[in-house]
Amino acid sequence: MPANGRVPTPTLERLATYMTVLAGLKSRGVETVSSIDIEQHTGINAAQFRKDLSYFGEFGRPGVGYDVSDLRARISRILKLEERQKVLLVGAGNLGSALAGYAPLRAENFEIVAAFDNDRAKIGKSLWGLAILDVDNIVEENRRLGARMGIIAVPANAAQEAAEKLVEAQVVTILNFAPVVLRIPRHVTVRNVDFFQELAVLSFHLP
Amino acid sequence: MPANGRVPTPTLERLATYMTVLAGLKSRGVETVSSIDIEQHTGINAAQFRKDLSYFGEFGRPGVGYDVSDLRARISRILKLEERQKVLLVGAGNLGSALAGYAPLRAENFEIVAAFDNDRAKIGKSLWGLAILDVDNIVEENRRLGARMGIIAVPANAAQEAAEKLVEAQVVTILNFAPVVLRIPRHVTVRNVDFFQELAVLSFHLP
Repeated sequence: MPANGRVPTPTLERLATYMTVLAGLKSRGVETVSSIDIEQHTGINAAQFRKDLSYFGEFGRPGVGYDVSDLRARISRILKLEERQKVLLVGAGNLGSALAGYAPLRAENFEIVAAFDNDRAKIGKSLWGLAILDVDNIVEENRRLGARMGIIAVPANAAQEAAEKLVEAQVVTILNFAPVVLRIPRHVTVRNVDFFQELAVLSFHLP
Repeated sequence: MPANGRVPTPTLERLATYMTVLAGLKSRGVETVSSIDIEQHTGINAAQFRKDLSYFGEFGRPGVGYDVSDLRARISRILKLEERQKVLLVGAGNLGSALAGYAPLRAENFEIVAAFDNDRAKIGKSLWGLAILDVDNIVEENRRLGARMGIIAVPANAAQEAAEKLVEAQVVTILNFAPVVLRIPRHVTVRNVDFFQELAVLSFHLP
């Protein structure tokens, strides 16, 4: 496998899409797929699919195709999803609640192991069976939990502080939903999901 | 302004980011910014910022910079956000609820004007003051509402049907949160947000 930096991010994004499609095929009893099948299911060009896989070695057999279970397992390994990945959630509001209750994440081996908030009215209550903890205790809580991934689902004005707390708690990857550019140390990887941005790009395309 | 197809999607995404940053600067009383200021606030290279704007004509004055209010207004116009954009929400579950209650969207002129579901237990109830309507009535409801944007926040197995109903209701842009590749007519623009994909890319980057 190449060094992390060498795999383009769009390739990683497509690998996740392949995993989802392969799970669907597997559940329908499909055992083998071709790159053309993948194109039909994903809209991703067959040649692109083969190129994406080529970063990680040899897959499939000429004239036979790809074994669905095997391919899914190998992509799962590439994305470090063979073992359960623990995730800390900061923000137990509406969005945090939707994420904590989102079944597909757990199905794919992501486990939100703790939810944090700074709102006294929320701390101690339960979010989908998780106790909502005081974000001020996140460092010591994660000493016990050992999560390396975090999600920020707090309002914009609280996001930078949430990021700093996650970093202090030894989290090294953050999925940020706040419409804020986080200042974080170089060793931390951040991805941003901005609902406004998504709708704005669509709005531009209105006729 | 160039034809829609000519502006790269990453440019459009960055325009939304500039709008968010400019709103923050404006609220703090900042009147003028340079491209270097923008770089400091967004992490987006100053030359990239100038290139992004160059698709849409002349902005700013050499040696003076950009007027914050004017630049924000012009980007808002480019993204068709000067007037309120109506949005139909399909799926009144946890995620739909989080989206309907997400204040930053309304602040930026997106208005979720109706929420739809196929769950008898939800129909007729209220979501943030919106009545939850039967998705089977979406076509006639939107004849009255005239929304051209839609959000799909339903489980994967209901997403394709939701997309078809939105298209039938004359919606032409869809933000899809279901982990499914939608089959839609060419005249419809779709963007996908897949929480699993976001976390999977981060998981790959774990040391």
